[in-house]
Amino acid sequence: MAGQVRSFKLVVAYDGSGFHGWQIQPVARTVQGVLEEALKAVLDDPTLRLEGAGRTDAGVHARGQAASFQSKTRLPARALAPLLNPRLPPDVRVRSAEEVVPGFGARRCAVARRYAYRLLRDDDLLLGRFAWHPPRAFDPERLERATRTLEGEHDFSAFRSAGSSPSVPVCRVTRAGWTREEHGVRLDIAADHFLYHMVRNIVGTALAGVQTRDPAAAMREVLGSQDRSRAGVTAPACGLCLEEVFFAAGGAQ
Amino acid sequence: MAGQVRSFKLVVAYDGSGFHGWQIQPVARTVQGVLEEALKAVLDDPTLRLEGAGRTDAGVHARGQAASFQSKTRLPARALAPLLNPRLPPDVRVRSAEEVVPGFGARRCAVARRYAYRLLRDDDLLLGRFAWHPPRAFDPERLERATRTLEGEHDFSAFRSAGSSPSVPVCRVTRAGWTREEHGVRLDIAADHFLYHMVRNIVGTALAGVQTRDPAAAMREVLGSQDRSRAGVTAPACGLCLEEVFFAAGGAQ
Repeated sequence: MAGQVRSFKLVVAYDGSGFHGWQIQPVARTVQGVLEEALKAVLDDPTLRLEGAGRTDAGVHARGQAASFQSKTRLPARALAPLLNPRLPPDVRVRSAEEVVPGFGARRCAVARRYAYRLLRDDDLLLGRFAWHPPRAFDPERLERATRTLEGEHDFSAFRSAGSSPSVPVCRVTRAGWTREEHGVRLDIAADHFLYHMVRNIVGTALAGVQTRDPAAAMREVLGSQDRSRAGVTAPACGLCLEEVFFAAGGAQ
Repeated sequence: MAGQVRSFKLVVAYDGSGFHGWQIQPVARTVQGVLEEALKAVLDDPTLRLEGAGRTDAGVHARGQAASFQSKTRLPARALAPLLNPRLPPDVRVRSAEEVVPGFGARRCAVARRYAYRLLRDDDLLLGRFAWHPPRAFDPERLERATRTLEGEHDFSAFRSAGSSPSVPVCRVTRAGWTREEHGVRLDIAADHFLYHMVRNIVGTALAGVQTRDPAAAMREVLGSQDRSRAGVTAPACGLCLEEVFFAAGGAQ
Protein backbone atom coordinates (compact mmCIF):
# COMPACT_ATOMS: atom_id res chain seq x y z
CA MET A 1 0.00 0.00 0.00
CA ALA A 2 2.84 2.43 0.78
CA GLY A 3 3.91 4.96 -1.82
CA GLN A 4 4.58 8.67 -1.89
CA VAL A 5 2.87 10.99 0.54
CA ARG A 6 -0.23 12.47 -1.10
CA SER A 7 -2.67 15.13 0.12
CA PHE A 8 -6.45 14.76 0.09
CA LYS A 9 -9.38 17.05 0.74
CA LEU A 10 -12.77 15.80 1.95
CA VAL A 11 -16.08 17.66 1.96
CA VAL A 12 -18.09 16.47 4.92
CA ALA A 13 -21.70 16.85 6.10
CA TYR A 14 -22.84 16.14 9.64
CA ASP A 15 -25.78 16.48 11.95
CA GLY A 16 -24.04 18.13 14.91
CA SER A 17 -26.74 17.20 17.46
CA GLY A 18 -24.94 14.10 18.66
CA PHE A 19 -21.39 15.48 18.62
CA HIS A 20 -19.30 17.48 21.04
CA GLY A 21 -18.19 19.57 18.09
CA TRP A 22 -15.62 18.98 15.42
CA GLN A 23 -12.37 18.91 17.36
CA ILE A 24 -11.08 15.60 18.68
CA GLN A 25 -11.29 15.09 22.45
CA PRO A 26 -10.08 12.24 24.66
CA VAL A 27 -13.50 10.85 25.61
CA ALA A 28 -16.32 12.84 23.99
CA ARG A 29 -17.75 11.88 20.60
CA THR A 30 -16.50 14.37 18.00
CA VAL A 31 -16.73 14.54 14.22
CA GLN A 32 -12.95 14.64 13.80
CA GLY A 33 -12.61 11.65 16.09
CA VAL A 34 -15.21 9.56 14.24
CA LEU A 35 -13.79 10.48 10.81
CA GLU A 36 -10.18 9.87 11.82
CA GLU A 37 -11.07 6.41 13.12
CA ALA A 38 -12.73 5.50 9.83
CA LEU A 39 -9.81 6.89 7.80
CA LYS A 40 -7.22 5.06 9.92
CA ALA A 41 -9.08 1.79 9.34
CA VAL A 42 -9.69 2.26 5.63
CA LEU A 43 -6.15 3.48 4.88
CA ASP A 44 -4.50 1.23 7.46
CA ASP A 45 -2.58 4.17 8.91
CA PRO A 46 -2.80 4.60 12.70
CA THR A 47 -0.88 7.89 12.62
CA LEU A 48 -3.24 9.68 10.21
CA ARG A 49 -4.38 13.14 11.35
CA LEU A 50 -7.25 15.12 9.90
CA GLU A 51 -7.29 18.93 9.68
CA GLY A 52 -10.71 20.64 9.55
CA ALA A 53 -11.28 24.07 7.99
CA GLY A 54 -13.71 25.14 10.71
CA ARG A 55 -13.71 23.93 14.31
CA THR A 56 -17.48 23.82 14.68
CA ASP A 57 -18.80 23.82 18.22
CA ALA A 58 -20.94 21.21 19.97
CA GLY A 59 -24.34 20.96 18.27
CA VAL A 60 -23.35 22.96 15.17
CA HIS A 61 -24.12 21.24 11.85
CA ALA A 62 -22.26 21.17 8.55
CA ARG A 63 -23.16 20.60 4.94
CA GLY A 64 -19.77 21.61 3.57
CA GLN A 65 -17.04 21.24 6.18
CA ALA A 66 -13.66 20.74 4.49
CA ALA A 67 -10.97 18.50 5.95
CA SER A 68 -7.54 17.44 4.76
CA PHE A 69 -5.05 14.68 5.47
CA GLN A 70 -1.81 13.21 4.14
CA SER A 71 -1.45 9.56 3.26
CA LYS A 72 0.79 7.18 1.36
CA THR A 73 -2.25 5.26 0.09
CA ARG A 74 -2.40 4.30 -3.58
CA LEU A 75 -6.19 4.41 -3.61
CA PRO A 76 -7.72 6.88 -6.05
CA ALA A 77 -9.51 9.78 -4.32
CA ARG A 78 -12.85 8.72 -5.81
CA ALA A 79 -12.68 5.45 -3.83
CA LEU A 80 -12.60 7.23 -0.48
CA ALA A 81 -16.27 8.24 -0.01
CA PRO A 82 -17.62 4.76 -0.96
CA LEU A 83 -15.13 3.13 1.42
CA LEU A 84 -15.62 5.57 4.29
CA ASN A 85 -19.39 6.09 4.31
CA PRO A 86 -20.40 2.51 5.17
CA ARG A 87 -18.07 2.74 8.22
CA LEU A 88 -19.45 6.07 9.37
CA PRO A 89 -22.47 6.52 11.64
CA PRO A 90 -25.61 7.93 9.97
CA ASP A 91 -24.95 11.45 11.28
CA VAL A 92 -21.69 11.98 9.32
CA ARG A 93 -21.17 11.60 5.61
CA VAL A 94 -18.25 12.24 3.26
CA ARG A 95 -19.80 14.06 0.31
CA SER A 96 -16.70 14.08 -1.89
CA ALA A 97 -12.96 13.49 -1.85
CA GLU A 98 -10.23 14.81 -4.12
CA GLU A 99 -6.47 14.77 -4.29
CA VAL A 100 -4.92 18.18 -3.72
CA VAL A 101 -1.50 19.82 -3.96
CA PRO A 102 1.15 18.44 -1.57
CA GLY A 103 1.16 20.23 1.76
CA PHE A 104 -2.47 21.36 1.45
CA GLY A 105 -4.14 22.04 4.79
CA ALA A 106 -7.90 22.69 5.02
CA ARG A 107 -7.53 25.15 7.88
CA ARG A 108 -4.48 27.00 6.59
CA CYS A 109 -5.55 27.10 2.94
CA ALA A 110 -9.22 28.09 3.36
CA VAL A 111 -9.76 31.66 2.17
CA ALA A 112 -13.41 31.97 3.27
CA ARG A 113 -16.23 30.18 5.02
CA ARG A 114 -20.00 30.52 4.65
CA TYR A 115 -22.32 29.77 7.56
CA ALA A 116 -26.12 29.72 7.63
CA TYR A 117 -28.21 30.43 10.71
CA ARG A 118 -31.88 29.43 10.49
CA LEU A 119 -34.73 30.96 12.48
CA LEU A 120 -38.18 29.37 12.72
CA ARG A 121 -41.41 31.36 12.83
CA ASP A 122 -43.17 28.65 14.85
CA ASP A 123 -41.95 26.15 17.38
CA ASP A 124 -41.60 22.70 15.80
CA LEU A 125 -39.89 19.66 17.27
CA LEU A 126 -38.73 18.28 13.90
CA LEU A 127 -37.60 21.51 12.21
CA GLY A 128 -36.11 22.64 15.54
CA ARG A 129 -33.30 20.13 15.17
CA PHE A 130 -31.69 22.36 12.52
CA ALA A 131 -33.12 25.79 13.32
CA TRP A 132 -34.03 27.98 16.28
CA HIS A 133 -37.43 29.33 17.25
CA PRO A 134 -36.58 32.54 19.15
CA PRO A 135 -38.84 33.66 21.99
CA ARG A 136 -39.92 36.85 20.20
CA ALA A 137 -41.31 37.32 16.67
CA PHE A 138 -38.90 38.78 14.13
CA ASP A 139 -39.27 40.95 11.06
CA PRO A 140 -37.03 39.77 8.18
CA GLU A 141 -36.62 43.27 6.76
CA ARG A 142 -35.39 44.63 10.07
CA LEU A 143 -33.01 41.69 10.53
CA GLU A 144 -31.65 42.40 7.06
CA ARG A 145 -31.03 46.07 7.89
CA ALA A 146 -29.22 45.07 11.08
CA THR A 147 -26.79 42.59 9.58
CA ARG A 148 -26.05 44.37 6.30
CA THR A 149 -24.12 46.94 8.33
CA LEU A 150 -21.62 44.20 9.17
CA GLU A 151 -20.47 43.74 5.59
CA GLY A 152 -16.92 44.92 5.03
CA GLU A 153 -13.77 44.76 7.13
CA HIS A 154 -14.34 45.38 10.83
CA ASP A 155 -13.03 44.48 14.25
CA PHE A 156 -15.61 41.93 15.49
CA SER A 157 -14.37 41.76 19.10
CA ALA A 158 -17.87 42.67 20.34
CA PHE A 159 -19.14 39.38 18.89
CA ARG A 160 -16.39 37.13 20.19
CA SER A 161 -17.20 34.94 23.18
CA ALA A 162 -14.56 34.28 25.81
CA GLY A 163 -12.80 30.92 25.86
CA SER A 164 -11.48 30.85 22.32
CA SER A 165 -7.90 30.70 21.22
CA PRO A 166 -6.77 34.20 20.21
CA SER A 167 -7.07 35.14 16.54
CA VAL A 168 -7.03 38.39 14.60
CA PRO A 169 -10.30 40.17 15.55
CA VAL A 170 -10.57 41.92 12.18
CA CYS A 171 -12.69 39.89 9.75
CA ARG A 172 -13.70 40.68 6.20
CA VAL A 173 -17.42 39.88 5.90
CA THR A 174 -18.43 39.59 2.26
CA ARG A 175 -22.08 38.83 2.89
CA ALA A 176 -24.47 39.03 5.83
CA GLY A 177 -28.01 38.87 4.47
CA TRP A 178 -31.26 37.07 5.20
CA THR A 179 -33.37 34.94 2.87
CA ARG A 180 -36.98 33.91 3.49
CA GLU A 181 -37.45 30.17 3.81
CA GLU A 182 -40.61 28.09 3.96
CA HIS A 183 -40.74 28.02 7.75
CA GLY A 184 -38.70 31.09 8.70
CA VAL A 185 -35.58 32.94 7.61
CA ARG A 186 -31.94 32.12 7.03
CA LEU A 187 -28.89 34.30 7.60
CA ASP A 188 -26.12 33.65 5.10
CA ILE A 189 -22.85 35.02 6.34
CA ALA A 190 -19.52 34.64 4.60
CA ALA A 191 -16.15 35.88 5.81
CA ASP A 192 -12.46 35.16 5.52
CA HIS A 193 -12.55 33.83 9.07
CA PHE A 194 -14.85 33.85 12.08
CA LEU A 195 -14.25 34.45 15.78
CA TYR A 196 -15.50 32.13 18.53
CA HIS A 197 -19.36 32.16 18.59
CA MET A 198 -19.32 35.11 16.19
CA VAL A 199 -22.33 34.08 14.06
CA ARG A 200 -24.41 33.06 17.05
CA ASN A 201 -23.62 36.33 18.84
CA ILE A 202 -24.50 38.30 15.71
CA VAL A 203 -27.87 36.51 15.51
CA GLY A 204 -28.61 37.23 19.18
CA THR A 205 -27.63 40.87 18.73
CA ALA A 206 -29.67 41.26 15.53
CA LEU A 207 -32.77 39.84 17.27
CA ALA A 208 -32.34 42.35 20.09
CA GLY A 209 -31.63 45.15 17.61
CA VAL A 210 -34.85 44.63 15.68
CA GLN A 211 -36.77 45.61 18.82
CA THR A 212 -35.17 49.08 18.69
CA ARG A 213 -36.12 52.04 16.52
CA ASP A 214 -33.15 51.68 14.16
CA PRO A 215 -31.79 48.10 13.89
CA ALA A 216 -28.85 49.17 11.71
CA ALA A 217 -27.75 51.85 14.16
CA ALA A 218 -28.09 49.43 17.08
CA MET A 219 -25.87 46.88 15.32
CA ARG A 220 -23.28 49.51 14.31
CA GLU A 221 -23.11 50.73 17.89
CA VAL A 222 -22.39 47.24 19.24
CA LEU A 223 -19.85 46.57 16.49
CA GLY A 224 -18.07 49.90 17.14
CA SER A 225 -17.92 49.32 20.89
CA GLN A 226 -15.69 46.23 20.46
CA ASP A 227 -17.21 45.26 23.79
CA ARG A 228 -18.72 41.76 24.17
CA SER A 229 -20.94 42.92 27.04
CA ARG A 230 -22.82 45.21 24.63
CA ALA A 231 -23.81 42.39 22.26
CA GLY A 232 -26.89 40.16 22.64
CA VAL A 233 -27.20 36.59 23.83
CA THR A 234 -25.50 33.73 22.00
CA ALA A 235 -28.14 32.08 19.81
CA PRO A 236 -28.24 28.28 20.26
CA ALA A 237 -25.96 25.99 18.27
CA CYS A 238 -28.80 24.01 16.62
CA GLY A 239 -29.55 26.84 14.16
CA LEU A 240 -26.00 27.10 12.84
CA CYS A 241 -24.61 25.21 9.86
CA LEU A 242 -21.21 25.45 8.14
CA GLU A 243 -22.42 25.43 4.55
CA GLU A 244 -19.27 25.88 2.50
CA VAL A 245 -15.52 26.43 2.68
CA PHE A 246 -13.71 28.24 -0.11
CA PHE A 247 -10.15 27.76 -1.32
CA ALA A 248 -8.06 29.86 -3.67
CA ALA A 249 -8.31 28.78 -7.29
CA GLY A 250 -5.76 26.04 -7.87
CA GLY A 251 -5.40 25.52 -4.14
CA ALA A 252 -7.39 22.32 -4.38
CA GLN A 253 -5.14 20.38 -6.75
CA MET B 1 -54.48 13.38 44.83
CA ALA B 2 -57.24 10.79 44.20
CA GLY B 3 -60.60 11.97 42.88
CA GLN B 4 -62.97 10.90 40.13
CA VAL B 5 -61.68 9.20 37.01
CA ARG B 6 -61.15 11.81 34.31
CA SER B 7 -60.15 11.43 30.64
CA PHE B 8 -57.39 13.40 28.93
CA LYS B 9 -56.18 13.82 25.40
CA LEU B 10 -52.60 14.75 24.52
CA VAL B 11 -51.25 16.00 21.20
CA VAL B 12 -47.70 14.73 20.82
CA ALA B 13 -44.79 15.43 18.45
CA TYR B 14 -41.78 13.18 18.07
CA ASP B 15 -38.71 12.59 15.98
CA GLY B 16 -39.16 8.90 15.19
CA SER B 17 -35.50 8.29 14.27
CA GLY B 18 -34.55 7.02 17.71
CA PHE B 19 -37.71 5.01 18.45
CA HIS B 20 -38.88 1.52 17.61
CA GLY B 21 -42.23 3.02 16.76
CA TRP B 22 -45.13 4.13 18.92
CA GLN B 23 -46.30 0.91 20.48
CA ILE B 24 -44.81 -0.17 23.81
CA GLN B 25 -42.44 -3.14 23.74
CA PRO B 26 -40.69 -5.00 26.56
CA VAL B 27 -37.14 -3.84 25.79
CA ALA B 28 -37.05 -1.49 22.80
CA ARG B 29 -37.37 2.28 23.19
CA THR B 30 -40.85 3.34 22.05
CA VAL B 31 -42.76 6.62 22.18
CA GLN B 32 -45.63 5.08 24.13
CA GLY B 33 -43.15 3.59 26.59
CA VAL B 34 -41.31 6.87 27.17
CA LEU B 35 -44.55 8.87 27.51
CA GLU B 36 -46.20 6.38 29.84
CA GLU B 37 -43.16 6.42 32.12
CA ALA B 38 -43.31 10.21 32.36
CA LEU B 39 -47.07 10.20 32.97
CA LYS B 40 -46.82 7.51 35.65
CA ALA B 41 -44.21 9.58 37.47
CA VAL B 42 -45.98 12.94 37.15
CA LEU B 43 -49.42 11.56 38.08
CA ASP B 44 -48.06 9.03 40.59
CA ASP B 45 -50.10 6.25 38.98
CA PRO B 46 -48.14 3.07 38.10
CA THR B 47 -51.16 1.52 36.35
CA LEU B 48 -51.71 4.32 33.85
CA ARG B 49 -52.06 3.21 30.21
CA LEU B 50 -51.85 5.45 27.18
CA GLU B 51 -53.83 4.86 23.96
CA GLY B 52 -52.43 6.31 20.74
CA ALA B 53 -54.56 7.20 17.72
CA GLY B 54 -51.98 5.87 15.24
CA ARG B 55 -49.48 3.09 15.87
CA THR B 56 -46.64 4.68 13.93
CA ASP B 57 -43.86 2.34 12.84
CA ALA B 58 -40.15 2.46 13.71
CA GLY B 59 -38.60 5.64 12.29
CA VAL B 60 -41.90 7.35 11.47
CA HIS B 61 -42.26 10.88 12.86
CA ALA B 62 -45.26 12.75 14.26
CA ARG B 63 -46.27 16.36 14.64
CA GLY B 64 -49.82 15.64 15.74
CA GLN B 65 -50.15 12.16 17.23
CA ALA B 66 -53.11 12.01 19.63
CA ALA B 67 -53.06 9.92 22.78
CA SER B 68 -55.52 9.45 25.61
CA PHE B 69 -55.47 8.19 29.18
CA GLN B 70 -57.66 8.01 32.29
CA SER B 71 -56.54 9.34 35.64
CA LYS B 72 -57.89 10.34 39.03
CA THR B 73 -55.51 13.29 39.16
CA ARG B 74 -56.86 16.66 40.28
CA LEU B 75 -54.33 18.54 38.18
CA PRO B 76 -55.79 20.84 35.55
CA ALA B 77 -55.10 19.67 31.99
CA ARG B 78 -53.07 22.82 31.27
CA ALA B 79 -50.50 21.72 33.89
CA LEU B 80 -49.67 18.49 32.08
CA ALA B 81 -47.43 19.70 29.25
CA PRO B 82 -45.26 21.90 31.54
CA LEU B 83 -44.90 18.99 33.98
CA LEU B 84 -44.26 16.30 31.36
CA ASN B 85 -41.94 18.04 28.93
CA PRO B 86 -39.00 18.58 31.31
CA ARG B 87 -39.09 14.82 32.03
CA LEU B 88 -39.21 13.82 28.37
CA PRO B 89 -36.15 13.29 26.14
CA PRO B 90 -35.60 15.97 23.46
CA ASP B 91 -37.12 13.80 20.71
CA VAL B 92 -40.65 13.74 22.21
CA ARG B 93 -42.78 16.68 23.20
CA VAL B 94 -46.33 17.10 24.47
CA ARG B 95 -47.74 19.98 22.43
CA SER B 96 -51.04 20.29 24.28
CA ALA B 97 -53.29 18.53 26.75
CA GLU B 98 -57.01 18.83 27.35
CA GLU B 99 -59.69 17.11 29.40
CA VAL B 100 -62.16 15.16 27.27
CA VAL B 101 -65.48 13.35 27.75
CA PRO B 102 -65.34 10.30 30.05
CA GLY B 103 -64.49 7.11 28.20
CA PHE B 104 -62.72 8.93 25.36
CA GLY B 105 -60.12 6.78 23.54
CA ALA B 106 -57.77 8.31 20.99
CA ARG B 107 -57.76 5.21 18.80
CA ARG B 108 -61.44 4.41 19.00
CA CYS B 109 -62.68 7.99 18.73
CA ALA B 110 -60.42 9.24 15.91
CA VAL B 111 -62.46 9.79 12.76
CA ALA B 112 -59.53 10.59 10.43
CA ARG B 113 -55.76 10.90 10.27
CA ARG B 114 -53.55 12.98 8.03
CA TYR B 115 -50.04 11.84 7.11
CA ALA B 116 -47.38 13.66 5.11
CA TYR B 117 -44.66 11.97 3.09
CA ARG B 118 -41.75 14.18 2.01
CA LEU B 119 -39.52 13.60 -1.02
CA LEU B 120 -36.22 15.44 -1.53
CA ARG B 121 -34.94 16.55 -4.92
CA ASP B 122 -31.29 16.29 -3.78
CA ASP B 123 -29.56 14.07 -1.31
CA ASP B 124 -28.92 15.96 1.94
CA LEU B 125 -27.78 14.51 5.25
CA LEU B 126 -29.70 17.04 7.37
CA LEU B 127 -32.97 17.22 5.44
CA GLY B 128 -32.80 13.45 4.93
CA ARG B 129 -33.66 12.89 8.56
CA PHE B 130 -37.28 13.85 7.84
CA ALA B 131 -37.60 13.17 4.11
CA TRP B 132 -36.48 10.67 1.46
CA HIS B 133 -34.31 11.26 -1.58
CA PRO B 134 -35.52 8.58 -4.03
CA PRO B 135 -33.01 7.06 -6.47
CA ARG B 136 -34.80 8.45 -9.53
CA ALA B 137 -35.95 12.00 -10.29
CA PHE B 138 -39.69 12.66 -9.97
CA ASP B 139 -42.15 14.98 -11.65
CA PRO B 140 -44.61 16.55 -9.16
CA GLU B 141 -47.41 16.83 -11.75
CA ARG B 142 -47.18 13.13 -12.59
CA LEU B 143 -47.09 12.17 -8.90
CA GLU B 144 -50.22 14.26 -8.41
CA ARG B 145 -52.04 12.49 -11.25
CA ALA B 146 -51.11 9.11 -9.79
CA THR B 147 -52.30 9.69 -6.24
CA ARG B 148 -55.45 11.72 -7.01
CA THR B 149 -57.00 8.53 -8.36
CA LEU B 150 -56.88 7.14 -4.80
CA GLU B 151 -59.33 9.69 -3.44
CA GLY B 152 -62.66 8.17 -2.48
CA GLU B 153 -63.64 4.88 -0.88
CA HIS B 154 -61.61 1.90 -2.10
CA ASP B 155 -60.26 -1.45 -1.02
CA PHE B 156 -56.56 -0.71 -0.37
CA SER B 157 -55.42 -4.33 0.04
CA ALA B 158 -52.82 -3.84 -2.72
CA PHE B 159 -51.08 -1.28 -0.47
CA ARG B 160 -51.14 -3.29 2.76
CA SER B 161 -47.90 -4.94 3.85
CA ALA B 162 -48.01 -8.35 5.50
CA GLY B 163 -47.53 -8.54 9.25
CA SER B 164 -50.27 -6.20 10.38
CA SER B 165 -53.24 -7.03 12.52
CA PRO B 166 -56.31 -7.48 10.31
CA SER B 167 -58.50 -4.43 9.76
CA VAL B 168 -61.17 -3.46 7.23
CA PRO B 169 -59.29 -3.00 3.91
CA VAL B 170 -61.76 -0.38 2.67
CA CYS B 171 -60.57 3.14 3.49
CA ARG B 172 -62.14 6.47 2.68
CA VAL B 173 -59.34 8.72 1.39
CA THR B 174 -60.42 12.35 1.49
CA ARG B 175 -57.18 13.80 0.12
CA ALA B 176 -54.10 12.45 -1.63
CA GLY B 177 -52.32 15.39 -3.24
CA TRP B 178 -48.81 16.76 -3.54
CA THR B 179 -47.50 20.20 -2.60
CA ARG B 180 -44.20 21.69 -3.72
CA GLU B 181 -41.83 22.43 -0.87
CA GLU B 182 -38.55 24.30 -0.81
CA HIS B 183 -36.41 21.19 -1.23
CA GLY B 184 -38.84 18.74 -2.84
CA VAL B 185 -42.49 17.72 -2.62
CA ARG B 186 -44.87 16.59 0.08
CA LEU B 187 -47.75 14.13 -0.20
CA ASP B 188 -50.68 14.99 2.09
CA ILE B 189 -52.95 12.04 2.53
CA ALA B 190 -55.97 11.93 4.81
CA ALA B 191 -58.27 8.99 5.42
CA ASP B 192 -60.60 7.56 8.02
CA HIS B 193 -57.99 4.88 8.73
CA PHE B 194 -54.83 3.48 7.17
CA LEU B 195 -53.59 -0.07 6.59
CA TYR B 196 -50.13 -1.29 7.58
CA HIS B 197 -47.46 0.56 5.50
CA MET B 198 -50.22 1.97 3.29
CA VAL B 199 -48.77 5.46 2.79
CA ARG B 200 -45.23 4.19 2.23
CA ASN B 201 -46.48 1.60 -0.29
CA ILE B 202 -48.51 4.27 -2.09
CA VAL B 203 -45.41 6.49 -2.35
CA GLY B 204 -43.31 3.61 -3.73
CA THR B 205 -46.05 2.75 -6.23
CA ALA B 206 -46.53 6.38 -7.30
CA LEU B 207 -42.76 6.74 -7.93
CA ALA B 208 -42.83 3.63 -10.12
CA GLY B 209 -46.03 4.77 -11.84
CA VAL B 210 -44.58 8.13 -12.89
CA GLN B 211 -42.09 6.21 -15.04
CA THR B 212 -45.00 4.82 -17.12
CA ARG B 213 -46.98 6.53 -19.88
CA ASP B 214 -50.07 7.09 -17.75
CA PRO B 215 -49.36 7.38 -13.99
CA ALA B 216 -53.08 7.54 -13.10
CA ALA B 217 -53.89 4.36 -15.03
CA ALA B 218 -50.90 2.58 -13.48
CA MET B 219 -52.08 3.49 -9.98
CA ARG B 220 -55.69 2.52 -10.70
CA GLU B 221 -54.54 -0.84 -12.01
CA VAL B 222 -52.58 -1.61 -8.83
CA LEU B 223 -55.45 -0.41 -6.64
CA GLY B 224 -58.00 -2.53 -8.54
CA SER B 225 -55.82 -5.64 -8.37
CA GLN B 226 -56.05 -5.75 -4.56
CA ASP B 227 -52.75 -7.61 -4.91
CA ARG B 228 -49.77 -6.46 -2.81
CA SER B 229 -47.32 -8.04 -5.26
CA ARG B 230 -48.43 -5.53 -7.92
CA ALA B 231 -47.58 -2.46 -5.85
CA GLY B 232 -44.17 -0.78 -5.64
CA VAL B 233 -41.53 -0.88 -2.94
CA THR B 234 -42.23 0.40 0.55
CA ALA B 235 -40.74 3.91 0.78
CA PRO B 236 -38.51 4.38 3.87
CA ALA B 237 -39.98 5.40 7.22
CA CYS B 238 -37.92 8.62 7.54
CA GLY B 239 -40.13 10.47 5.01
CA LEU B 240 -43.38 9.77 6.83
CA CYS B 241 -44.98 11.99 9.48
CA LEU B 242 -48.33 11.70 11.25
CA GLU B 243 -49.39 15.33 11.01
CA GLU B 244 -52.85 15.41 12.52
CA VAL B 245 -55.62 13.28 14.03
CA PHE B 246 -59.24 14.37 13.77
CA PHE B 247 -62.08 13.71 16.20
CA ALA B 248 -65.81 14.22 15.81
CA ALA B 249 -66.98 17.63 16.97
CA GLY B 250 -67.69 17.46 20.68
CA GLY B 251 -65.72 14.23 20.99
CA ALA B 252 -62.89 16.11 22.58
CA GLN B 253 -65.17 18.08 24.87
